[in-house]
Amino acid sequence: MNAKERDRRRFLKGGAALAGLALSGSRPAQGQTPGGEAGGESRAKDPRAYGERSRFVTAGRLGRSRTAFPSLSPLQDSVGVITPAALHFTVGVGSAGPPDIDPRQHRLMIHGLVDRSLLFTMDELQRLPAVSRIHFLECSGNSYLRLPFRQNPVTVQHTHGMTGCSEWTGVLLSVLLREAGVQPGASWLVAEGADAEKHWRSVPLEKAMDDVLVAYGQNGEPVRPEQGYPLRLVVPGWEGNINVKWLRRIKVVDQPYMTRQETTKYADVRPDGKGRWFAHEMGPKSVITHPSGGQQLPGRGFYEIGGLAWSGRGAVRRVEVSTDGGKTWKDAELQSPVLRIAHTRFRFAWNWDGQAAMLQSRCTDELGDTQPTMDEFAKLWGVTKDYWLSSSNFIHHCNAIQPWEVTRDGSVHNAIFA
Amino acid sequence: MNAKERDRRRFLKGGAALAGLALSGSRPAQGQTPGGEAGGESRAKDPRAYGERSRFVTAGRLGRSRTAFPSLSPLQDSVGVITPAALHFTVGVGSAGPPDIDPRQHRLMIHGLVDRSLLFTMDELQRLPAVSRIHFLECSGNSYLRLPFRQNPVTVQHTHGMTGCSEWTGVLLSVLLREAGVQPGASWLVAEGADAEKHWRSVPLEKAMDDVLVAYGQNGEPVRPEQGYPLRLVVPGWEGNINVKWLRRIKVVDQPYMTRQETTKYADVRPDGKGRWFAHEMGPKSVITHPSGGQQLPGRGFYEIGGLAWSGRGAVRRVEVSTDGGKTWKDAELQSPVLRIAHTRFRFAWNWDGQAAMLQSRCTDELGDTQPTMDEFAKLWGVTKDYWLSSSNFIHHCNAIQPWEVTRDGSVHNAIFA
Repeated sequence: MNAKERDRRRFLKGGAALAGLALSGSRPAQGQTPGGEAGGESRAKDPRAYGERSRFVTAGRLGRSRTAFPSLSPLQDSVGVITPAALHFTVGVGSAGPPDIDPRQHRLMIHGLVDRSLLFTMDELQRLPAVSRIHFLECSGNSYLRLPFRQNPVTVQHTHGMTGCSEWTGVLLSVLLREAGVQPGASWLVAEGADAEKHWRSVPLEKAMDDVLVAYGQNGEPVRPEQGYPLRLVVPGWEGNINVKWLRRIKVVDQPYMTRQETTKYADVRPDGKGRWFAHEMGPKSVITHPSGGQQLPGRGFYEIGGLAWSGRGAVRRVEVSTDGGKTWKDAELQSPVLRIAHTRFRFAWNWDGQAAMLQSRCTDELGDTQPTMDEFAKLWGVTKDYWLSSSNFIHHCNAIQPWEVTRDGSVHNAIFA
Repeated sequence: MNAKERDRRRFLKGGAALAGLALSGSRPAQGQTPGGEAGGESRAKDPRAYGERSRFVTAGRLGRSRTAFPSLSPLQDSVGVITPAALHFTVGVGSAGPPDIDPRQHRLMIHGLVDRSLLFTMDELQRLPAVSRIHFLECSGNSYLRLPFRQNPVTVQHTHGMTGCSEWTGVLLSVLLREAGVQPGASWLVAEGADAEKHWRSVPLEKAMDDVLVAYGQNGEPVRPEQGYPLRLVVPGWEGNINVKWLRRIKVVDQPYMTRQETTKYADVRPDGKGRWFAHEMGPKSVITHPSGGQQLPGRGFYEIGGLAWSGRGAVRRVEVSTDGGKTWKDAELQSPVLRIAHTRFRFAWNWDGQAAMLQSRCTDELGDTQPTMDEFAKLWGVTKDYWLSSSNFIHHCNAIQPWEVTRDGSVHNAIFA
């Protein structure tokens, strides 16, 4: 038991410690600078107090339809592993955008099968022991083959843009649940958001007590509105939709609640009618972000093939790259530190000889699971790749290998549709 | 030698490989999304394509004077270790702001004592083997005692706001120098920026060949204009001023060039007239960011004391916290991963009993060096703390322990001036 763990236990043994929290926290209203006696006025009025990009930088998120809120992150422009919050993918905010929540009014309730219900203000939550962890999020629908509004996805933003990676800061949900006192017989919880839809999802108690975060910070500042401001659940490695945004209520229960999202959109149904419910983990996956679809190589010579790899089950152990359509594979270099359940940048030196080439990457995670080809993945679902490509439906949790074809003129294409 | 290193050597043995680079790179103009056939128009016009903060979040940088460009980062609001680029401290951009550089026109020249001079476009640089590393930057003037426009710094933004930590992406300078071929007798280089001032600094060749980056990425997107867009030098662990922004020229030479900044502003001069030139490394340092000056504790009970620690010489090994004015010290928990030359978040559980308290933190780095008290630090410079406090001059590289006094009413004060 390390020092922090001891302190946490002392804190929890205190029992009434949390109940004794005053209604206003140790810090002033979130994001407000105390002691604004100097420069305060200029700060408030000076747009440079919060900096902007160069006018020459125009990378942006792309909507899945012309009316949807922009949701696909421009991975072709990504570098490193941190996704800027302003470019993080977002799903499920509606075309009107995210709710406009005043943090002073926001509360988190914990109730149900607990010894005592708790109600937290944001200030109270921010007084509690915190952790920061770098984790990816990915929509379970990322990399499905046909977007609603076009035939063929062209760029890596289209094919893989629904993933991002952030440094999340918040309180471990286990700390809150221990404080509330989980009762015997409890086995699940239901987490609810404060959006108009009242989005809610069932989470197994075992996962909740493991590594789930109640997060108020993302990349060093408050979570963005589209990501759940002022509070979101972060369920590391599990499909994006279960990472409930605008979190306001956690009810401890004795069974999954079979919410609408769970029984319809986010269940995986096979063509034969069988399916999987509550399959949450995102499998080992990778994608080459450059060169990638829609890009143009100016000529033969040296290129660094680069991309991202991740797994919802732990750390990436290995990424291999093939430039000859899968005949041969070589290890790519992994950028350190390689963190659990986080985007991992890989790089691979390549001399293009000017001939047609097929670029692919495949990820193996710490459990030894390896990313399948598209044919292998389709087979897992009892269909062929062709059936799939011709279907208007799609299967979630697709972690198939993405092939990019380089033609002799240097243009790069999505080879799934070649 | 790992695979990447072998590939790099092959790449370098290629010799003419770089010279053969076409003028346009593998990627379209930086930050431009290729294949904009769908959603392109809406993306360009939709402000949500690049997200914004909640309107309730107003944390901002603070100028050191009413006319200076905002420069001090709001550390009191920081969480985790990544500093949002929009809130990263900035020094030396002038009140008019940073230069407005078109990346298509920008070039990096490498010349001087080299076998062949090289001129790189941004596209060419981005084709080369890249690395991403999380490093802090700190102005050597951070934590000097009297800011130009006030008597006593109140908040941690005032006292320590000239440091930030980012994931930097770019090319190792050693790759470029090896390609140019450094000639015998070379021992330094001079790096020059494209700002109006033509800021330049001397860098020892040994450091340049070690871990210096020519960075174009910061936290997953292009470096911000205030940080040197489109290109800056990152000299890990060395004073901020040597991390030349808007980098356009590197001249390999046989001696330091004694530039204006080096012989005047950024030399450390003692009261007896002796001084140190070219003392670049930032020592082990830490500061409690909450509770900190200007904040108000709402009442007795549990608080998590949190803050940041760093060292220009490597990783943070240990952070201790004292709540009794330095009589006793206990280990704080360090957030993992603990990275070399990066901000490290520490946390310490504290039950405030409602009595006056003095909060301090001290950092020990992997070399075993420990942060000094203010008295000890002053003594190193042959002065007393009182002399220092009464002087209008200041000494660079101050890494003294910062004490915050908590009074019985719960208010927190900068105890340096108590």
